[in-house]
Amino acid sequence: MSGVFLTLEGLEGTGKTTNLAFVQQRLQQAGVDVLVTREPGGTPLGEALRDVILNRHDVQIGAMAELLMIFAARAQHLEQVIKPALAAGRWVLSDRFTEASYAYQGAGRSLGSEAVEVLENLVQQELQPDLTFLLDIEPELGLRRASATGAPDRIEQAGLPFFERVRSGYLARAQQFPQRFCVLDAAEPLLDVQAGLDNALAALLRDKGLPS
Amino acid sequence: MSGVFLTLEGLEGTGKTTNLAFVQQRLQQAGVDVLVTREPGGTPLGEALRDVILNRHDVQIGAMAELLMIFAARAQHLEQVIKPALAAGRWVLSDRFTEASYAYQGAGRSLGSEAVEVLENLVQQELQPDLTFLLDIEPELGLRRASATGAPDRIEQAGLPFFERVRSGYLARAQQFPQRFCVLDAAEPLLDVQAGLDNALAALLRDKGLPS
Repeated sequence: MSGVFLTLEGLEGTGKTTNLAFVQQRLQQAGVDVLVTREPGGTPLGEALRDVILNRHDVQIGAMAELLMIFAARAQHLEQVIKPALAAGRWVLSDRFTEASYAYQGAGRSLGSEAVEVLENLVQQELQPDLTFLLDIEPELGLRRASATGAPDRIEQAGLPFFERVRSGYLARAQQFPQRFCVLDAAEPLLDVQAGLDNALAALLRDKGLPS
Repeated sequence: MSGVFLTLEGLEGTGKTTNLAFVQQRLQQAGVDVLVTREPGGTPLGEALRDVILNRHDVQIGAMAELLMIFAARAQHLEQVIKPALAAGRWVLSDRFTEASYAYQGAGRSLGSEAVEVLENLVQQELQPDLTFLLDIEPELGLRRASATGAPDRIEQAGLPFFERVRSGYLARAQQFPQRFCVLDAAEPLLDVQAGLDNALAALLRDKGLPS
């Protein structure tokens, strides 16, 4: 793989969409060819599964089934989009990836990180993001911000204790893999968050021998 | 688990539907309360995933994504249908189960049995069928019979070499677990196949201390 793989993680209400666009533009300004994608989704199959997971309120989905559907979407996403782009030397920026499974299904749904790790090994083998941005926020503040932007989907309806576990799950992973994670305080003003993104991207570009 | 778990496996064109009904009626005549279900499917989520797997010809689905979707449907099926029925002492008869994953995805799609085993352990833990009927047939004959009954779905379109691998996959599993499998030659006249089913069911009923 000759490309660079970046992921952006975090709860709802952390400004993920805005900051995704910022990272994309920052890289494009540096002359980097970046493919922006998202999970669950990223392919027609992934979007079909995303729709079932988030919007089929009439269908009962247990925690293990949810995790397996997310990894089915991820397997297709890797095969059809991410690996071919990286192989072609492109940068890939994904709105959520496997860290979201550790946080939402492993911690939030209490499946445990072992179940996620089994699937990560099966589906990704050695592939890992080069850098993962984690936009961290108090769930109460994040949910208050997110609730301003529309009706909650099936996962957003899970309640505050669920999101407290998701946040803890994310932070535990960041602590376990500090060399790969860049944690930013999403409660700070947007310009400060983006200064943090900018610093990390400049360092990464220099590291790859590119003009930052 | 106090119930008994039976599965029926085999290629298309083996008379699976007819023989499923025969097993159901044979058990009901013996006074057994039997729940009949199917895979992929068996729950609203499972049926939604089945529909994507078999009928969404517009959506690209790789082998690993297909396997993970089948196990997502299976996890929900176990949680919502099979385990509660067995816990209540009922017999469960499923039209296909995990052996189909070894045969279709492991052998047919060439994913290998290790990938299937990883998911089997994750989703089923110790749970295994008490008895698996395998209706065996030459794929060429099976496909000729099946093609009389309607347009082929996405898996049925895979071609003869695929179904040769599926059949070999089934037979290899039956050889590996002879105490759990009952293999019947589906090319024989239907009455002979059903005499085989009848013998195995009578032995199982006696084994469970029930009038056969």
